[in-house]
Amino acid sequence: MMKLYDLELSGNCYKVRLFAALAGIQLDLVPVDFMAGKHKQAPVIDLNPWGELPVLEDGEVVLRDSQAILVYLARQYANDDWYPQDAAEQALVQQWLSTAANEIQNGPASARLVDKFGFELDKARTLVISDRILGLLESHLSQNQWLAAEQATIADCAVMPYVALAREGGISLDDYPEILKWIEQIKTLPGFIPMPGI
Amino acid sequence: MMKLYDLELSGNCYKVRLFAALAGIQLDLVPVDFMAGKHKQAPVIDLNPWGELPVLEDGEVVLRDSQAILVYLARQYANDDWYPQDAAEQALVQQWLSTAANEIQNGPASARLVDKFGFELDKARTLVISDRILGLLESHLSQNQWLAAEQATIADCAVMPYVALAREGGISLDDYPEILKWIEQIKTLPGFIPMPGI
Repeated sequence: MMKLYDLELSGNCYKVRLFAALAGIQLDLVPVDFMAGKHKQAPVIDLNPWGELPVLEDGEVVLRDSQAILVYLARQYANDDWYPQDAAEQALVQQWLSTAANEIQNGPASARLVDKFGFELDKARTLVISDRILGLLESHLSQNQWLAAEQATIADCAVMPYVALAREGGISLDDYPEILKWIEQIKTLPGFIPMPGI
Repeated sequence: MMKLYDLELSGNCYKVRLFAALAGIQLDLVPVDFMAGKHKQAPVIDLNPWGELPVLEDGEVVLRDSQAILVYLARQYANDDWYPQDAAEQALVQQWLSTAANEIQNGPASARLVDKFGFELDKARTLVISDRILGLLESHLSQNQWLAAEQATIADCAVMPYVALAREGGISLDDYPEILKWIEQIKTLPGFIPMPGI
């Protein structure tokens, strides 16, 4: 079975666990002791020289980056609704995969790294990035039920976790009713699984 | 013809111009006066509420985010070598699209924004991110001729520009011979076009 080198409290790992659950894909979770730095030691560092989690191992296929893992699982094991084949539809998903990798990671996810895990990052900067991206997301969701298609896609799975965890970085979602509605909507999808804080 | 709302000095816009040139895709370039803030005014802001360049307009299809535009152009107008259909191969490309969106943007691209355009960002932080990503890139290229496949893909087009422009952010590439070799190799591809600084 596929192995996911996993950290329960990581939103990036949860993206993968969530999508696998929604799409009915079986994963063998291999917990990695992040606080002890095991992700920067063998055998994990040999699989991913970047020293980050999650890492997916599916036979010969070894992947870092949660967005890339979502693309792989969707294309290999799920129906096309999750990651459409059409060029324009695929690009609409990609817009939000880039957003997840950049603005969401450097906004709400990094604010949480400071508050919850004591990372020495510029907290004020994470809040500036968060304000901007949450405003753009709220506006987008006021006109679209899902981020990138008529149905849930891997874009929703990539963006939602750290947005829903924003409170753990000291960021309130009270002023973002469309975002709150979208999070609740994801929670009603068949197969949904939670994580601590969501 | 497709319109690319473009800024000559933007590495993100150059990613798209470069790939289109390599793949023989015709673009109608629409220069946007960035210094005058035209990207934050109509009509560009109506096409992209994010207020960023580039923006691609192909009939009804309107896309922001340079990585998403690369995905669209490759899937719609280029052969599969540039963006493979196979799940694992596509995910290997995605790893580097995420890297382009995050580490490259917040490392060398942001260092250049400070030095060349006077943006008020934490320069020291951009250098820390750059050091890490350039080291990982150098190591990867010491074992791989291209980033994500046996041939050039949109991953190379997404990552190369701001790496090659690193000097404009005060970052020397002298200690990265594999990166320098890879940049030169891209320059020899049929159809290659330069930009100021590359």
